Amino acid sequence: MASVAVIGAGAVGSYYGARLAQAGHDVRFLLRRDYDAVAERGLRIESHHGDFALERPAIARDPAAIGPVDWVLCGLKTTALEDAAALIRPCLAPATRVLAIMNGLGIEERLAASLGTERVFGGLAFTCINRGEPGVIHHIEYGQVGIAHVGDDPAELDRALALWQDATVEVTRQPSLLRARWEKLCWNVPFNGLTVAAGGVDTEAIVTDPALRAAARALMEEVVAAGNADLAAAASPERIDGDAVIARMFTLTDAMGPYRPSTLIDYLEGRAIEVDAIFAEPVRRARDLGVATPRMEMLAALLAGLDPGGGEA
Amino acid sequence: MASVAVIGAGAVGSYYGARLAQAGHDVRFLLRRDYDAVAERGLRIESHHGDFALERPAIARDPAAIGPVDWVLCGLKTTALEDAAALIRPCLAPATRVLAIMNGLGIEERLAASLGTERVFGGLAFTCINRGEPGVIHHIEYGQVGIAHVGDDPAELDRALALWQDATVEVTRQPSLLRARWEKLCWNVPFNGLTVAAGGVDTEAIVTDPALRAAARALMEEVVAAGNADLAAAASPERIDGDAVIARMFTLTDAMGPYRPSTLIDYLEGRAIEVDAIFAEPVRRARDLGVATPRMEMLAALLAGLDPGGGEA
Repeated sequence: MASVAVIGAGAVGSYYGARLAQAGHDVRFLLRRDYDAVAERGLRIESHHGDFALERPAIARDPAAIGPVDWVLCGLKTTALEDAAALIRPCLAPATRVLAIMNGLGIEERLAASLGTERVFGGLAFTCINRGEPGVIHHIEYGQVGIAHVGDDPAELDRALALWQDATVEVTRQPSLLRARWEKLCWNVPFNGLTVAAGGVDTEAIVTDPALRAAARALMEEVVAAGNADLAAAASPERIDGDAVIARMFTLTDAMGPYRPSTLIDYLEGRAIEVDAIFAEPVRRARDLGVATPRMEMLAALLAGLDPGGGEA
Repeated sequence: MASVAVIGAGAVGSYYGARLAQAGHDVRFLLRRDYDAVAERGLRIESHHGDFALERPAIARDPAAIGPVDWVLCGLKTTALEDAAALIRPCLAPATRVLAIMNGLGIEERLAASLGTERVFGGLAFTCINRGEPGVIHHIEYGQVGIAHVGDDPAELDRALALWQDATVEVTRQPSLLRARWEKLCWNVPFNGLTVAAGGVDTEAIVTDPALRAAARALMEEVVAAGNADLAAAASPERIDGDAVIARMFTLTDAMGPYRPSTLIDYLEGRAIEVDAIFAEPVRRARDLGVATPRMEMLAALLAGLDPGGGEA
């Protein structure tokens, strides 16, 4: 049994933390907004794999009250990345590992820079999860998590996969964090982006409109081109198989129904959207690599303008 | 003195019609929504060139009541282009000429196909004009009109320029309709488009945000490339001087302040926006010519999705 701190217990953090608790791990959730609701009624997961509840989960308002653990599961929004290290640090012992289930590019590297190289992992969740009322999580579709290590260390990957061994979560081993991150962006850039920029529509509206579907595909092609250039520049032998990945993204999204990605929900609810990690950082990286990403660049500019948490725009 | 029917007396049609009336022409306005207000209080122009009013303008609810005239000034939205011929036809005599002060590409050609080749002109207004309360037009900035002929006939152009001779309107002779239309799109594509797609912001928000300004410039470059390919394909010797046009567009727009283009106002007021003529038609034309316009294409897809008057999106 491992001790686990869930820092950033939004929909994704709560769901995967609850799955670890269900598997018998000692999971402690850092909560702010939902503390009282969860203290009173517990945490309920309504999942397409079957509902379950943690009646009396271990919860805290302060990471110091959680203290050092074996694993930190970080589900913060990248818009809170600045605060992540301060929230995680009270939970660190020398051997603590940190799994960031977050979107975007460059996340693990930044966490590793503050928290210590080698202890950070990326969790790439392909799943449809939304919050319901406080203390209730709706797990609508999918759920698999690709796991990668910031140093691509196979022994570290074994350690991370072992954590999930008894959990009702399909985990896959991702030998290359960089490749896994760019592949994930093949979904997040078009769908998190276009659902907001097209006026606040769901994924079904994108895949069923021929022009928006074509825009989504063209954005994916830009992501693949930039990702493969990034892998080459990093001297990695890995490459993204663009055709296969793009086909898979459409197959999964076509079956998804009218899903609202997290960025869309943040936008519709007036919260800051993850412009930098999902859009601006890949654009900067592509530009440095000399790869043209005209659509992604324009989308990033529009989203920065649309960001409810944005600056002067 | 010429007789003039203003069909589509929105902000632009009313303004230029009033300028012709001020110059002594017999101008008759087709009005629907604002008929009663103008019948009661006349038409008032609040212009940065000085205010003036037509106390008792000739107005009609039906083009048949206007009857045949020397000139039709068509200020309809391109979203009403289907109805334009039916509205204009009652005003036609054999020698009647039609000046379309509208946005977008292919407008004059479509009007010429229904109304007769050679009688149609394009008026390319570079001006900041909005409606105020019914019967009041705010002319905020600029005001010049480039005049082109659907057949690029110099004698016809003389005739059109003569109409404006005594009017307080700066008109310029545009020897090539195709070139003039693409140059106009260098403004309309980025500014009518991005102000809507960036969430309903004014032109100042575009030119002062570095990323959106860069997007505007990149969109202009796509328009120039497509326009020059279109001119070449039409065996025209004319070319757009991209650097000069783009520099001029930014100079003019930087001085414009927080202007709201017509498409933005239509969008904010829940009316159909001119997606087809300003965005989709140039994209189709570029695609036929083999010119890549990735940003314009994505912008067109987003705007079709955002269009309050749009279809299933």
